[in-house]
Amino acid sequence: MNLTKTLIAGAILTVFVSSANAGSEIETLITMLHENGMVSDEQFARLQAELKQNQVSANAEKKAVQEQLAEATKPSDVDVKIKGGLSIKTRDGDFSTKLGGRVQIDAATYSGQPEIGDGTELRRARLYLQGTMYKDWGYKLQYDFAGSGTINDAFMTYNGFDNLQLKVGNFKDPFMLQEGTSSKYVLFTERALPSAFAAGRHIGVMASTKQQHWSLAAGLFGDSYTANNGTNHDEDEGWGVGTRATFAPINEKGELLHFGLGLNYRDVSDSGTAQFKQQAETHISGINIVDTGSIGNVDDVLKVGLEVATVAGPFSAQAEYISTSVNRNNASDLDFDGWYAQAGYFLTGESRSYKKGAFAGIKPKGNVGEGGIGAWELGLRYSTLDLIDRDIDGGEVDTFTLGLNWYATPTLRFSANYVDVLNVTGGAHDNEEPSLFQVRSQWAF
Amino acid sequence: MNLTKTLIAGAILTVFVSSANAGSEIETLITMLHENGMVSDEQFARLQAELKQNQVSANAEKKAVQEQLAEATKPSDVDVKIKGGLSIKTRDGDFSTKLGGRVQIDAATYSGQPEIGDGTELRRARLYLQGTMYKDWGYKLQYDFAGSGTINDAFMTYNGFDNLQLKVGNFKDPFMLQEGTSSKYVLFTERALPSAFAAGRHIGVMASTKQQHWSLAAGLFGDSYTANNGTNHDEDEGWGVGTRATFAPINEKGELLHFGLGLNYRDVSDSGTAQFKQQAETHISGINIVDTGSIGNVDDVLKVGLEVATVAGPFSAQAEYISTSVNRNNASDLDFDGWYAQAGYFLTGESRSYKKGAFAGIKPKGNVGEGGIGAWELGLRYSTLDLIDRDIDGGEVDTFTLGLNWYATPTLRFSANYVDVLNVTGGAHDNEEPSLFQVRSQWAF
Amino acid sequence: MNLTKTLIAGAILTVFVSSANAGSEIETLITMLHENGMVSDEQFARLQAELKQNQVSANAEKKAVQEQLAEATKPSDVDVKIKGGLSIKTRDGDFSTKLGGRVQIDAATYSGQPEIGDGTELRRARLYLQGTMYKDWGYKLQYDFAGSGTINDAFMTYNGFDNLQLKVGNFKDPFMLQEGTSSKYVLFTERALPSAFAAGRHIGVMASTKQQHWSLAAGLFGDSYTANNGTNHDEDEGWGVGTRATFAPINEKGELLHFGLGLNYRDVSDSGTAQFKQQAETHISGINIVDTGSIGNVDDVLKVGLEVATVAGPFSAQAEYISTSVNRNNASDLDFDGWYAQAGYFLTGESRSYKKGAFAGIKPKGNVGEGGIGAWELGLRYSTLDLIDRDIDGGEVDTFTLGLNWYATPTLRFSANYVDVLNVTGGAHDNEEPSLFQVRSQWAF
Repeated sequence: MNLTKTLIAGAILTVFVSSANAGSEIETLITMLHENGMVSDEQFARLQAELKQNQVSANAEKKAVQEQLAEATKPSDVDVKIKGGLSIKTRDGDFSTKLGGRVQIDAATYSGQPEIGDGTELRRARLYLQGTMYKDWGYKLQYDFAGSGTINDAFMTYNGFDNLQLKVGNFKDPFMLQEGTSSKYVLFTERALPSAFAAGRHIGVMASTKQQHWSLAAGLFGDSYTANNGTNHDEDEGWGVGTRATFAPINEKGELLHFGLGLNYRDVSDSGTAQFKQQAETHISGINIVDTGSIGNVDDVLKVGLEVATVAGPFSAQAEYISTSVNRNNASDLDFDGWYAQAGYFLTGESRSYKKGAFAGIKPKGNVGEGGIGAWELGLRYSTLDLIDRDIDGGEVDTFTLGLNWYATPTLRFSANYVDVLNVTGGAHDNEEPSLFQVRSQWAF
Repeated sequence: MNLTKTLIAGAILTVFVSSANAGSEIETLITMLHENGMVSDEQFARLQAELKQNQVSANAEKKAVQEQLAEATKPSDVDVKIKGGLSIKTRDGDFSTKLGGRVQIDAATYSGQPEIGDGTELRRARLYLQGTMYKDWGYKLQYDFAGSGTINDAFMTYNGFDNLQLKVGNFKDPFMLQEGTSSKYVLFTERALPSAFAAGRHIGVMASTKQQHWSLAAGLFGDSYTANNGTNHDEDEGWGVGTRATFAPINEKGELLHFGLGLNYRDVSDSGTAQFKQQAETHISGINIVDTGSIGNVDDVLKVGLEVATVAGPFSAQAEYISTSVNRNNASDLDFDGWYAQAGYFLTGESRSYKKGAFAGIKPKGNVGEGGIGAWELGLRYSTLDLIDRDIDGGEVDTFTLGLNWYATPTLRFSANYVDVLNVTGGAHDNEEPSLFQVRSQWAF
Repeated sequence: MNLTKTLIAGAILTVFVSSANAGSEIETLITMLHENGMVSDEQFARLQAELKQNQVSANAEKKAVQEQLAEATKPSDVDVKIKGGLSIKTRDGDFSTKLGGRVQIDAATYSGQPEIGDGTELRRARLYLQGTMYKDWGYKLQYDFAGSGTINDAFMTYNGFDNLQLKVGNFKDPFMLQEGTSSKYVLFTERALPSAFAAGRHIGVMASTKQQHWSLAAGLFGDSYTANNGTNHDEDEGWGVGTRATFAPINEKGELLHFGLGLNYRDVSDSGTAQFKQQAETHISGINIVDTGSIGNVDDVLKVGLEVATVAGPFSAQAEYISTSVNRNNASDLDFDGWYAQAGYFLTGESRSYKKGAFAGIKPKGNVGEGGIGAWELGLRYSTLDLIDRDIDGGEVDTFTLGLNWYATPTLRFSANYVDVLNVTGGAHDNEEPSLFQVRSQWAF
């Protein structure tokens, strides 16, 4: 009997140690009392049975509570963010939806010749819906309500290949660093003069890869989506091919060295015309300071762009040179070109961010509304554009621009730009030298 | 005493069985020890009191945990889905909001006569906001940003009656199966030639009922919402009435037999004109292959449409005949008509779905991005349209179309269509026989 | 020993009362049994050790459950509402996003002279995205898709000052009570005749404060955002300043006495023209019943508006007088004016609500769809407008309007208006007296 008791006690101890059941002391007590002869065999059996049954129901109850707890604390299927606009993602990342937009409110005053009307403008007023579907597919539709309204982006993407994205729809041709950088993030209110050679947006297909230290994109494009809008036409639309390669031997947080090369070929097809023109790095007036007018007998246009950019902490700089050759079918070819160089400096210590071959958004060290003063940035730029060649006298212009940007939060920006047109040579505004002061208030997300 | 013990034991057993209180064994033990004379009456009373009080507090604690658990595991008020766009519903179904859209990116090349310009187009680029409010009310606003922009739908509904919906606003007149089927879901990139007789969208009121085996809709309509847009006008707008009845004696998953009848009457009012025209089942060119031009002295137009459709597993077919009578006030009446027949077959085994009198979306058996290959569908169509009667020589045309659709996911579709214009008789393009190849990439949800 | 037992029992009681540990009765029992000599010292020590260890693990388990419960029942970061549209806020209120809109579907029939075309119209079809960012910043973009499309609001606000809001972008000049009241909430389908003097929306900056009993707003504005849209212009845009002050000595739920004064000055700048015109409190026809035509040689325009309004339970009334002086540079100044008075009464007992200097939305006592009949409101109005002065004969008109509004839910409204033009004197429609019946269906949120 002693052996039995020892065996039982040992068994109980084992159970106790292995499971640490709260309440096991009652089992120990019962056993002891039985051993000590305080309870009869029959009573002992009854107590053990009752104990066992109670343990079973206690365990069932505990398990039910733990299952409910697991259910209650499991994360939601979707993650909702509203830092500006609306962003929702599934936890697995297979689906996402983003609703965002941007509004740019401008005012400008002009002096000197030519006479340019002072005024105000909603420069951009966009909304977009963008998302991911079934893991590998993306979509976007972005519309600009400003002016008479324009579809900016209307495309879908396939992201199922490693390091390769396919895109079809209406979007920007891959050409030029300042065009690849969103209007939300460019250093000045307007892009530099050579944006006269911007490739713009067309309906097309593109393949691209974007790595830490390089990117490559190549596409085949039709015409702009408004090319045959609402008109009967027996003329074929123009078409083009474009490619842009970037190389960033240094690309760390706050440190960048970037080189880029862009090629853009466009067959103007049955239209047979091309035109290049530019305002004085402003948009409110609509007055072009240089303008080739419509050039006839054009077969095709080839543009080449060279880019270099750097970031060193709060300092950033970039420069681009673009050359454009217009091939005419019964006249000599024309060559136009332009370049700019610009530099920016954050007084508050932030750095320009860089993503996938272009500059991206600014996060102030402290946001206004959260105790900070936002990010403050100074900018300087020199630009020049030459639209004179052979029989075409579109004029040549160069400008100097001074800018100040205040990013109150990642979603807000206020800018003031002073643009001085240093000289216009030739064209309709020969020898005129206007200057302008322009301010912008922007929300964008 | 034995009896007492037995009685007590019985009572305890009853309590135990009925309540299965974990911990009841301690009560049994105490009672036994008391019966066995191991604890005094006073000790027994003290133990029982303590036991009771502990049970009360344990139960209170357990109840508190269960209440917290119930609170934590109750479902959220709203259910958020982002399978493409954004869809939010309250759990009770009284409120819902859906933000969705569609983009169709087209390219086409043409051969033969007449000369039609090759090119690209954003065929549709829509966003919509749709929802339910206060259980019985619905709303929708849908805008197409493509071209110069169009409001598609701008209406509200009342759904508080059993099996009857009331609708007021801008929406499609109920007429024709291929018009009732969304452009997201029609078999080919463009609807068949008789869409020249489509009733279109107008501002009006409509009552409808949609059952498993039949549907009926009837409405009173004013003019299209752009009819008096921005112009002073002393002329009354046109108005019309329209009705469509459908009967589906077979309507199960993958099996359908559908018949339909539509009537559409329109008083052209002070405008006094009507015109019917059609492109070659394409939209990029804008060139009408048949066209009555503007017919004068018109009082009213009456259209009659007959529909038949079937689905048998992966096979689907539909045909429609539309006759249009133009009633003139000082000349003989004119009769134009057209019909088409088309068939589709899913190589991957899916079935066309059918809802409330029209074809609906396709769910591939396996989505691309989730390991599947999507749904693949072949289509064939013959269409004809006759716009020649009496003094009006708009031309007669018939076409043959071959199509391939790839539904990569429920929200994505890629289509390629070859359209062969078999013959044009009369009109401006007499004896011309163009053909075209057209591709479309579409996201829609 | 009795003393010992008593002491121990007292200690146990103290422990029990202070901690109310469920399970403490086992400890009491063990102690008693030990005291009674039923378990040996060694057994007692073993039982106590086991008891203690079990209590530790039970407490740990209980704590884990309570932590999980606290995690599971803590509120979500964001609060989603879809009572119409979509509204999401962070719990701390620092961020919010709202997607909403309004659609107004109109139909009208006209009798008498001049001939006005009966018809239908989508009067407004708007969507907006609005929100709060980083606590102190707000944004809004609202577009009206009706007609040829208009940006209504495109602005940002800074709300970081106490009781002062700064606003920059495109929005309404602060002028007139009926203009400050949203078109969703005005008593009749169209505002009264003096809306011919409405200041409209411009791009500008404004400071405002809105208190329980008064409000003050003052702004500096450029021209409307479409002023220089798409055209080269060497003319300066117009500009203006405007201010509005309101005083509400009584402003409680269901009780209001409101006074207002507005001043609006506008320099028409290089355009040199001004024009005032008005339809017969309808919008479908586009026919102006009075019209000054384009007035030349204008320097500037000064408008003064006086407002009074009251609410007494279901009764509301408001009146405004506006005087407009046109300053010409080589001719006498012109003075035009107009006023209206209107009253409304809720048959179902609701009250007009008033917020920050203007009337706001109606919440029916019972919504249709939730068992109620909505809110029913009758309205009466007299308006007059005089556009005759010196050499300008734009005509003078007065109208009487009877209206019925049914607010089925807070987001839905159906209106019927009968407008009787009592008299036209002078202008192109001298002595003509048309009348009209107009209905509107509206959803708005």
